[in-house]
Amino acid sequence: MIRIVEVGPRDGLQNEKSILATEDKFQFISALADSGLKSIEVTSFVKAPAIPQMADANELFSKVKTELFDSGVSFPCLVPNLKGYETAKKLGVKEIALFTATSDSFTKKNINATVDESFERMREVVEEAKKDKIMVRGYVSTAFGCPYEGTMDVKKLISVTKRLFELGVYEVSVGDTIGVAIPMQVRSYIRALKSEFPIGKLAMHFHDTRGMALTNIYVSLEEGITTFDSSAGGLGGCPYAKGATGNVATEDVWYLLQSQGLDTGIDIAKLAEASRFILGKLGRPTESKFLKAYLSTGKI
Amino acid sequence: MIRIVEVGPRDGLQNEKSILATEDKFQFISALADSGLKSIEVTSFVKAPAIPQMADANELFSKVKTELFDSGVSFPCLVPNLKGYETAKKLGVKEIALFTATSDSFTKKNINATVDESFERMREVVEEAKKDKIMVRGYVSTAFGCPYEGTMDVKKLISVTKRLFELGVYEVSVGDTIGVAIPMQVRSYIRALKSEFPIGKLAMHFHDTRGMALTNIYVSLEEGITTFDSSAGGLGGCPYAKGATGNVATEDVWYLLQSQGLDTGIDIAKLAEASRFILGKLGRPTESKFLKAYLSTGKI
Repeated sequence: MIRIVEVGPRDGLQNEKSILATEDKFQFISALADSGLKSIEVTSFVKAPAIPQMADANELFSKVKTELFDSGVSFPCLVPNLKGYETAKKLGVKEIALFTATSDSFTKKNINATVDESFERMREVVEEAKKDKIMVRGYVSTAFGCPYEGTMDVKKLISVTKRLFELGVYEVSVGDTIGVAIPMQVRSYIRALKSEFPIGKLAMHFHDTRGMALTNIYVSLEEGITTFDSSAGGLGGCPYAKGATGNVATEDVWYLLQSQGLDTGIDIAKLAEASRFILGKLGRPTESKFLKAYLSTGKI
Repeated sequence: MIRIVEVGPRDGLQNEKSILATEDKFQFISALADSGLKSIEVTSFVKAPAIPQMADANELFSKVKTELFDSGVSFPCLVPNLKGYETAKKLGVKEIALFTATSDSFTKKNINATVDESFERMREVVEEAKKDKIMVRGYVSTAFGCPYEGTMDVKKLISVTKRLFELGVYEVSVGDTIGVAIPMQVRSYIRALKSEFPIGKLAMHFHDTRGMALTNIYVSLEEGITTFDSSAGGLGGCPYAKGATGNVATEDVWYLLQSQGLDTGIDIAKLAEASRFILGKLGRPTESKFLKAYLSTGKI
């Protein structure tokens, strides 16, 4: 069984130009939960002016909590700092995700902090989360490459991953934030990671900016990875390559996994319908070639 | 060194709605040749009413012969029958491509002949081509799956490939015509093929209809394949899945190959410019995610 962490409502929608109605986002999340996805990242508790796409975090999460919490699905939320954590906690969030990167240039531009400073912020949050019995997942951005520093050394990835596990996260999601990872690099970085950490605690988070995501996932599977982040319909984009693709599409990942005989528990018809709905609201086509063919033929 | 057979001007453009001016096609082919591609399929000598996109075959090939024949590039043309062959020969074509399939339903719908009958037609052509010292390449369509018969048994592929080699083709291009091949199947079919035939005489021809082409190429490389067909910019479409993707994009293949440290002799800037030009004439965006990112950032 392969676990997919659906990040479309958060990582996807936060990189879309259109700002959707809360009700549409909720319908989307509800449809995703109904499709069999077991972990759906709902939103991000950031300051509204920073990311207007996430400005309705409180309202959206409250609705998810009221209406979907008995579905057995996890609904993690991104939390950038202690203030965001306090809000999330009050609303009843049971799992949070924290993020850092391997590149100081990236974290500075992104969250105005060095990597070390980001760990100070995360430590404050994790200390509270432990007391509150809230699960914490860690993201490492720019694991393979950074828009400012280029290819990132695997040693930085190992070091940041180690610090995240020491902090107390239950899983580290290794992010190819700008979609520059290539299969050879993915294989060698995973081999380095699994010599240090249990592979079951590692997730891969690929962006399909250069069309390499599925091949990178194929290689990750060969190396034993069992958790992948993806975005329904391939929502999102890449702020560092205008007009380029965002997260790998959940449908593409599903198609590869089922072709390898790997179960995900996802009902593809329901998932495709969820994507079709939200893409309609955004008024844009999908970036998933499989989804295009599936919606056109009605067949896998 | 990996050999790429560029099929954009033929397999790509014949599946585009727009019918381009001969001069535009020539500019495209000229730019492709200048980019370092060593084999470019120019056109198809079919009856004009059957495929209006190829109606200017004579004029286009004549121009290619006059202006590009000293470039050291091969310019094969598709030939469906003896009549097409005679035309091609008169115009000075030095290499032809013939096609059949593993599925009778497919050849019947496509060329109104069973697979056996297609071999009778091909035999007439190959006998002449041998006398004329014209090289012959063979295509096997529906090698993995057929829109009418579903998944195709590897035994049919072995049998058709064997008959093509017996006929006298120098290479067999194994075609995933409708883009249904999956990595596991690709690996097992190539293993079956290479137990019967020299792997250096086999090419893989993937369509990216379901986004699986690059992963299938990755697996093909692992199995030792060194020749791939592709289409600049991902031109073309799939007549069996409306709105879906056609041939795998040459740029995507290039990106995967160079990421694996494999040389193709292609200048990516020139190739991307050739694609940008022809996509402009067609008035449509590329299906290649790598090309989108490359044109957006100007960087690999």
